[in-house]
Amino acid sequence: MENPVLSAIYSRRSVRQYAQDPIEDAKIKEIIKAGMWAPSGLNNQPWRFAIVKDPELKKKFEPLTKYSRVIKGAKVLLPVFIDKNAMYHPVKDHQAIGACIENMLLAAHSLGLGAVWLGEILKSDKEIRKLLGLGDDLELMAVVALGYPASRDQKSRRKDMKELIVFEG
Amino acid sequence: MENPVLSAIYSRRSVRQYAQDPIEDAKIKEIIKAGMWAPSGLNNQPWRFAIVKDPELKKKFEPLTKYSRVIKGAKVLLPVFIDKNAMYHPVKDHQAIGACIENMLLAAHSLGLGAVWLGEILKSDKEIRKLLGLGDDLELMAVVALGYPASRDQKSRRKDMKELIVFEG
Repeated sequence: MENPVLSAIYSRRSVRQYAQDPIEDAKIKEIIKAGMWAPSGLNNQPWRFAIVKDPELKKKFEPLTKYSRVIKGAKVLLPVFIDKNAMYHPVKDHQAIGACIENMLLAAHSLGLGAVWLGEILKSDKEIRKLLGLGDDLELMAVVALGYPASRDQKSRRKDMKELIVFEG
Repeated sequence: MENPVLSAIYSRRSVRQYAQDPIEDAKIKEIIKAGMWAPSGLNNQPWRFAIVKDPELKKKFEPLTKYSRVIKGAKVLLPVFIDKNAMYHPVKDHQAIGACIENMLLAAHSLGLGAVWLGEILKSDKEIRKLLGLGDDLELMAVVALGYPASRDQKSRRKDMKELIVFEG
């Protein structure tokens, strides 16, 4: 009765400490592919991806968030952007981006990698686009930090399901 | 080298035609549990869920969307709401809802069910909250329609990955 998809959903955790091992390019591409296969309204696929592997470039992300320690430890950063020209409905487009990022996190987990979804760094949208030479038709939606896990943040909590079900009938 | 998580992500499709078989309550709860285990900013878990199984009640959703045929065929509707009181950042909260819905869709798929993410029905937020007796501290984010698949919409397309990667270095 093992359901590997449900197991992945329930066992995925934010991983913020990473081993030194490099990440295979094929795994990076697989994670992006998983993101791309999220559903989106009108199938508009508003997501765009950057891949930051160069240590010197990655270092420049450190002062742009209070989670500089995570950036420092991560082997690869995957900044995720939205293409404003592809958008049709902000709420639905941002939901699609969330679906895309969740696919990326589940893919990373299934590939033995650790990942964390960084949102606080959105305050540095402009600086990050400048670092990557990207224009303002894109907007930063998240940075996914990746590495082989050194340790896993084991605990996470969720509300009781009864609190979250507002109607049944 | 089979990776069941990636397989689920790549093989999931919107399912809009359903068999008559009822859906087990345990599966409904599992789908909601999968949604609950999505990540959210500050772990604020802004999602709330409704479960609509009663055929008479479900029928009242039909005029509220141009996809009334989907509603008619579905065995269960899972309206997903956001709790405005739990929100802290609209973009990040809407992303979290998208992650939640993607988990629900992947869970449904892994359980042999078909599902489709209905967004056009958001225009009927007010009417739907009225049908369910819910106040305006909630806002409708999507309706997930569920049933055992009668047929699957086999095809879906994605842009080429090269078009979506805006930076690599």
